Amino acid sequence: MEIREIYDSYKELLDQDVEVKGWIRKHRKQKEIGFIDLSDGTCFKRIQVVYDKSIKDFEEISKIHFGSAIQVEGTLILSPASGQDFELRSKEIALIGDCSEDYPIQPKEHSREFLREQAYLRPRAALFQAIFRVRSVLSIAIHEYFRLHGYIYLHAPILTASDCEGAGEMFQVTTQDLDEIAKTGEVRYDDDFFGKKVGLSVSTQFEAETFAQAFSKVYTFGPTFRADKSHTPYHVAEFWQIEPEVAFCDLEGIMDIAEDLVKFVIRYTLEHAKDEMEYLDKYVEKGLIERLSKILTCKFKRVPYKDCIEILKKSDKDFEFKPEYGADIAKEHEKYLTDYFKCPFFLTMWPKELKAFYMKQMPDGTVAGADLEMPGIGEVFGMSQREDDLDKLVSRMKELDMKIDEYEWYVKLREYGSCERSGFGIGFERLLMFITGIDSIKDVTPYPRVHKSCDF
Amino acid sequence: MEIREIYDSYKELLDQDVEVKGWIRKHRKQKEIGFIDLSDGTCFKRIQVVYDKSIKDFEEISKIHFGSAIQVEGTLILSPASGQDFELRSKEIALIGDCSEDYPIQPKEHSREFLREQAYLRPRAALFQAIFRVRSVLSIAIHEYFRLHGYIYLHAPILTASDCEGAGEMFQVTTQDLDEIAKTGEVRYDDDFFGKKVGLSVSTQFEAETFAQAFSKVYTFGPTFRADKSHTPYHVAEFWQIEPEVAFCDLEGIMDIAEDLVKFVIRYTLEHAKDEMEYLDKYVEKGLIERLSKILTCKFKRVPYKDCIEILKKSDKDFEFKPEYGADIAKEHEKYLTDYFKCPFFLTMWPKELKAFYMKQMPDGTVAGADLEMPGIGEVFGMSQREDDLDKLVSRMKELDMKIDEYEWYVKLREYGSCERSGFGIGFERLLMFITGIDSIKDVTPYPRVHKSCDF
Repeated sequence: MEIREIYDSYKELLDQDVEVKGWIRKHRKQKEIGFIDLSDGTCFKRIQVVYDKSIKDFEEISKIHFGSAIQVEGTLILSPASGQDFELRSKEIALIGDCSEDYPIQPKEHSREFLREQAYLRPRAALFQAIFRVRSVLSIAIHEYFRLHGYIYLHAPILTASDCEGAGEMFQVTTQDLDEIAKTGEVRYDDDFFGKKVGLSVSTQFEAETFAQAFSKVYTFGPTFRADKSHTPYHVAEFWQIEPEVAFCDLEGIMDIAEDLVKFVIRYTLEHAKDEMEYLDKYVEKGLIERLSKILTCKFKRVPYKDCIEILKKSDKDFEFKPEYGADIAKEHEKYLTDYFKCPFFLTMWPKELKAFYMKQMPDGTVAGADLEMPGIGEVFGMSQREDDLDKLVSRMKELDMKIDEYEWYVKLREYGSCERSGFGIGFERLLMFITGIDSIKDVTPYPRVHKSCDF
Repeated sequence: MEIREIYDSYKELLDQDVEVKGWIRKHRKQKEIGFIDLSDGTCFKRIQVVYDKSIKDFEEISKIHFGSAIQVEGTLILSPASGQDFELRSKEIALIGDCSEDYPIQPKEHSREFLREQAYLRPRAALFQAIFRVRSVLSIAIHEYFRLHGYIYLHAPILTASDCEGAGEMFQVTTQDLDEIAKTGEVRYDDDFFGKKVGLSVSTQFEAETFAQAFSKVYTFGPTFRADKSHTPYHVAEFWQIEPEVAFCDLEGIMDIAEDLVKFVIRYTLEHAKDEMEYLDKYVEKGLIERLSKILTCKFKRVPYKDCIEILKKSDKDFEFKPEYGADIAKEHEKYLTDYFKCPFFLTMWPKELKAFYMKQMPDGTVAGADLEMPGIGEVFGMSQREDDLDKLVSRMKELDMKIDEYEWYVKLREYGSCERSGFGIGFERLLMFITGIDSIKDVTPYPRVHKSCDF
C-alpha cells in the first residue's frame, strides 16, 4: 500500500493490517522500542512506524541504517503521540536494501550547495521532495490549463538549422569527429549527420506560429537551450519553456490569456501541492502562500513603457542607470516599478529598438509587446503580437541587416492567410522559482546544466 | 466565437447571430450564391458559410482565394442541405489575410511526400489536422494516466556527459568553433561551454531511476536523440519518449502498468479525438477503430522467449533468419508471433546477451526484460526490472568491458537503499503510428529530423 493511499483514507483503515515499503528518513531507537519515519515519496508526508520488543529480530531491526529501504507489516492505529493522527504498529519489518554508512545525506540540515553536489540523491531530502513535486504539479497545471481551453500541444523540433533569436548563444550539434577535424584541418558538413550546420533551438515560436495558422490555439512545452555564460541565480543552459501562440488574438487578448494562465497555475499548485507549499512557506519563504494568494485577487495593470519611464523619472531614487525614453528597463527599475504598483503588471508598448524584429509595429515607433513584471522577481516572461504584415516584417528585417532568405518560410507564412496573432514564452524554471520562493534556478532544476558544469 | 463552441452548443445558438474567424478550406461560387467551408482548427469539423447577392460586396467576396483568413458575421440556421446540421447565413464577410495564388496546398488530394516538403503548411490539410490533434490528445492522455496514478513528472536533462546505451549514435554538442579547430589543429574542451565533451541524451532512464528511489513512481516525457542513419518508416533522429520508473515493482508489475497505460491512452484517444479517429479510419486505415477497440478487450499474454523460439521452430514457415535459442527475434519472427497470438503480447525473459547490462539477471542466464509486441507493427517498446544488486551489476559490466567509473553514481545508487524497481521506454511516435494507422514516422512528426534532412 502507498503511504498516500493510507493518508487518503486512514480512518477506514484504522485497526487494520497494512503493508508498506519505503525508505527510512529517521530512526530513533530506545531500549524497548523503536520509531521509524518512513517515506515512499508518494506524498510529502511520512508515516511513523513503531516497533517494540515483541517483534522478531528486534536487535537487528534497531540497527537498520538511516536511508535503507524496508518493508513493514503492521496495524494502523490512532497515535498516542501528538503531531500525527495515526501510526503503524509493526508486526514484521524486513530489510529490502541496506544504506551504506557513507551515505552523504544524513538526518541533519545540509546546505543547498552541498546537496547540489549530490544531485542524484537530493530528491530524497524533504526540501527537494517539496520542490520537485511542485515542479511536477506545476507542469501538469500548465497542460491542464491549455487542455481546458482547447489548445493543441505541439512538440516543436529541438534540432534546427535556423536561428531564431539566439545568435551567438546557440549550441552546435554535430556528428563530425572533432579530433579528425583537428587532424585533417577540414570541416566537412557534407559528412555531418544532417549534411549541414545544425544547432539546438532557442525558441519554438516560429514553429508554433505555423501551427497557430492551422489550429488557432497551440502551445509548446519542452526544453530549450542557450549557451549563456551568465553565472546568476536565473541562468541555466538547458531549461523548459512554455510557448503558446494564438491566432485572431491581439496584444490585449494575449495579456488576458497570460494573466489567466498565471492565476490558474498558482491556484492549481496551491490546491494540489498543499503539504509541499506549506513546507516551503515554513522553511523557505515565510508568507509565500499569502504572497501567491494575493496575486489571485488582483487585476494585473497594463502600463505603457513611456508611462513607466515617466514614473521612474519622477521618483527621487538615485538609479545607477538613468531612466530615459529609449533605454532599457534595468533590474533596479523593475524593482522600483513593482514596488510602486504592488501587484504584477504588464509593461507594454516598447520602443521597437528594444524588442525583437517579429513584433507588431505601431505607427508611433513602438511595438505591441509586453513584459509581465512580478513583485520581488521582476520580468517573468514576455509576450507580443506578431507582425502579420509581410512588407512591414521584411522592411524591419532589412533595417536590422537580417538575411531574409534564412527566414524564408517564416516570412512566407504572411502570404498564406495571415492574421493577427500573439504569443508568449514562459521560462518554466523562473515561474517555478516565483511559486516556490526558491532563489536559485539550480535548486528547482533536477540536473542543472550551467557554464562549466554538466555533471550527473 | 470558436467553431468548436458552435458545434458544442449549436442547438442553443440557432437563429442567433455569431461571428467567426477562420480559413477558407473550400470555396464554391455560383452566380447568385457562394459556399465556403471555414475552418479555425479548434475542432476537426468545418462550418459551412453561405452568402448570396444580398451581401455587401458580393463580387469581391466571391473572388476571395482559397486559404485566406476571413471574418464572418451571420446567423446560424438549420441547414437545408444534407451532410450538416447547420450553416452560417452570412451578413458580412471581411477579408483578414489574403492567400497568394502560389499557395502550394490546393483543395485537391496531395501526396504525403509532397506535403512533407511543405511541412510548415501541411497542418492545414485535413489529414494533418487529424494526425496532429491526435498527437496532442495522446500526449495529454499520457500525462493524465500518470497524474491519476500519482506519478511525479520529471524533466530529465537532455545535455549529458554520460552515455547510457547510445554508443556511436550520440550527437555531440559543442560551442567550439569547428573552423577554428581545423585552423589550429587543436580540440580544446577546456574552452568548450561545459569544459568537457557533452552530447544529447539517448535515454532518461538513469535519471528516472534516481528519482524513483525518492518518489517511488516517476515518469519522463520529452525529446530524445539518436544519430541513427537508418532510412526506414520507423526512424527519426529526434523523437519523444515516455520513460516511467517504479520502485518496489518487479517485471510482472511493470507489465501490468504497461498494459494498463496502453489501454488507457487508446481509450482516451478514441473518446477525445472522435472525429479525427473516424477520419483516419475512413481515409488511412479501414478498420482502425475496430482494431484498437479489440485491444481494449483482450488480455495481453506473457510468453517467455524460449517458448517463442519453440513456436517459431515448430512453424513450417521458411524464415530468412533461422529461429534459434540465443539469436535475436527478427521482424519476420515478430510478424509470425503476433499473427499466431492475434493479440498484443509480452515477449519476456530474454537471454542476457541480447539485452542491456542493467536488466535484472536470473539464475538461468536470462534477464527480467520484456518487449511488447503488437499485431501489424511488432515491437512497440521494451521494459525491464533493473538489476538492484550492486555486485551482480558490476560483474555484468565487467563482462561487457564497460568502464565502471563512467557510471559511478548509477552504480552507487545500489548502495543507498536499493530496492527492486522496473521501468520502460515508449517511443511516442511509434505508439502514435500504431494509434493513427499512419505508416511513416515522418508523417506523425511535426518537423521530422532524419539523416541528411533538417529542414524548416
